[in-house]
Amino acid sequence: MAMQIESLDTPAILIDLDIMDRNLSRVADYARLHKLRLRPHTKTHKIPALGARQIALGAAGLTVAKVGEAEVMQRSTPDLLVAYPVIGRSKLDRLMRVDTDITVSLDSAEAAGQLSQAAQSAGRTIGVLAEFDAGLHRVGVPVGQRLHELVRSILELPGLDFRGIAFYPGHLKDAASPVDEMSASVQHALGQVRATGAEARIVSGGSTPLLWRSHEVQGINEIRPGTYIFNDRNTVESNACQWDDCAATILCTVVSTAVDGQMIIDGGSKTFSSDRTSIAPGFGRVTEAPAAVFEKMNEEHGYVNLAGVDRKFSIGDRVHVIPNHVCVAMNLHEQVYGVRNGRVDEVWKVEGRGKLQ
Amino acid sequence: MAMQIESLDTPAILIDLDIMDRNLSRVADYARLHKLRLRPHTKTHKIPALGARQIALGAAGLTVAKVGEAEVMQRSTPDLLVAYPVIGRSKLDRLMRVDTDITVSLDSAEAAGQLSQAAQSAGRTIGVLAEFDAGLHRVGVPVGQRLHELVRSILELPGLDFRGIAFYPGHLKDAASPVDEMSASVQHALGQVRATGAEARIVSGGSTPLLWRSHEVQGINEIRPGTYIFNDRNTVESNACQWDDCAATILCTVVSTAVDGQMIIDGGSKTFSSDRTSIAPGFGRVTEAPAAVFEKMNEEHGYVNLAGVDRKFSIGDRVHVIPNHVCVAMNLHEQVYGVRNGRVDEVWKVEGRGKLQ
Repeated sequence: MAMQIESLDTPAILIDLDIMDRNLSRVADYARLHKLRLRPHTKTHKIPALGARQIALGAAGLTVAKVGEAEVMQRSTPDLLVAYPVIGRSKLDRLMRVDTDITVSLDSAEAAGQLSQAAQSAGRTIGVLAEFDAGLHRVGVPVGQRLHELVRSILELPGLDFRGIAFYPGHLKDAASPVDEMSASVQHALGQVRATGAEARIVSGGSTPLLWRSHEVQGINEIRPGTYIFNDRNTVESNACQWDDCAATILCTVVSTAVDGQMIIDGGSKTFSSDRTSIAPGFGRVTEAPAAVFEKMNEEHGYVNLAGVDRKFSIGDRVHVIPNHVCVAMNLHEQVYGVRNGRVDEVWKVEGRGKLQ
Repeated sequence: MAMQIESLDTPAILIDLDIMDRNLSRVADYARLHKLRLRPHTKTHKIPALGARQIALGAAGLTVAKVGEAEVMQRSTPDLLVAYPVIGRSKLDRLMRVDTDITVSLDSAEAAGQLSQAAQSAGRTIGVLAEFDAGLHRVGVPVGQRLHELVRSILELPGLDFRGIAFYPGHLKDAASPVDEMSASVQHALGQVRATGAEARIVSGGSTPLLWRSHEVQGINEIRPGTYIFNDRNTVESNACQWDDCAATILCTVVSTAVDGQMIIDGGSKTFSSDRTSIAPGFGRVTEAPAAVFEKMNEEHGYVNLAGVDRKFSIGDRVHVIPNHVCVAMNLHEQVYGVRNGRVDEVWKVEGRGKLQ
């Protein structure tokens, strides 16, 4: 192929393949060292070829959020975790046609009941993880009586194979957060499971910010990080990686310098998403001018404040911007470009893009 | 077709066709009454059939932001305004192959020079509007000497037809904002044009929040509203329409009620975008429970706080949510559904979706 980066039009997501490979290997090694099953969340890349690469490096399976993502990722792995309650006939019928072993994490007897009916109709057995709330207050029942009841209802339903418990510690944003409370929560949850007479073979947790602390959380035996393949400004701000671990940048062109002290780039919320970080202001880091502040955006316009930046930018100049949140940015692009040594080595269609259902 | 809404899976954007038609007619009538050219911005709907409907109702042409949108909309109109500086050979070459009359609004001699070269190579004449800054400080040169110079540079370049001036009053968020300053700005800009000896045949401004005030801005003869076709929470919050003028809602399903006082719906930032309004907190209005606060989102999770809401919601219930910003939501959906009397009458592919370049 050997296309030059200069020949790409903007805005475009570039993936530095050397950095990506290093990120993938580092986490695979960490999981192996600590005997943790790795089931990466593919919502970050949404690309079957990258799912397959994660499996080749030792991942036990892949995680998705939506049935549409499972349909896309099924050719990359024999083992899929749908980390989202699947509600409604239409989605369940589609899920039953996905040709891998399937586990679903869910948090209600209602969701378990619907899944059981679908599994029976399809003559399949579907794995289930009972989701508990480790502090994010999103999905997941509180640990205690309600978890006990949820596990019991799963155990009683035909077509379901209770495999364990799952949680997502998304409320902890800093890599240095104390994990004692999480350990206690997991232990408490495991006690609730034991009280039903069942065994939690899988204890699935982990997020990218807390990734490197996973082995300190007593009881966890599976992690599902997503962002680590590319990393982003959020990951750096949460102290879970360095700037030079960020594999994905968005190549943008300066299209206006009409307002003094500012440049407008051709990437706004349609290119980056309007996700903020919970820590630092702004919408991304301009690699060519780290002191610049990407302070505002509209759909097609990125406003970059150049106060305190020595370098002069002209219309037509190109900049590489590390996005706040790479998962949502990937969802906005039809394809992305894998680059190495200044050349485009890979063009990947983002096949899992826009799978809302 | 006569599909029932109940048969649609979620999340999905529904367009109430009666409300949409009323919105379209109302603005077409307003423009006719005040002898304003109407060149609607199609970034809101991104659907050629709806562009064609705007033309059928009397619009003089259509507006787009990106060349990719021009490629999609060219079959709906003989007249396109690209309201964005087109920079770089690749985009300019594609623009020259768009088979309509084309006008580009731009704010630099550099952009004008590139456009002139492309026009000459293609043997075409391209219309140009000089963009000035009416207070948003995004693109657009300040009114004064720099506008004068910009107009002169456009006039001198072969292949370009100077047609007038353009601005976007995006800094005025409330329908009751005073427009005196904008009038003064337009008059000042027109003076700068006259000083070059040229005539501004087109004076293009207007946004949805200020739409109904356009006739008060002295000198304007063209408006380019976009959002008015559907309206959204932003439009209501800016006092430019009522809730029952909102044609687009996002149908979502309740997937978790595990946290007391809260429900999780299956639409988050991948479904709505994470755009906030500049006025009211939250990410949308739940039609079935207007007192509910859609207070937080992740990619696939919408957190709806139910404090103060009498109605009980269960897993599997469906709700209609008016999004903060309908343009960016449309960009996230492959297709949308036109509904009337409880039935799905139209399924439109969002053909202009994701046209970043």
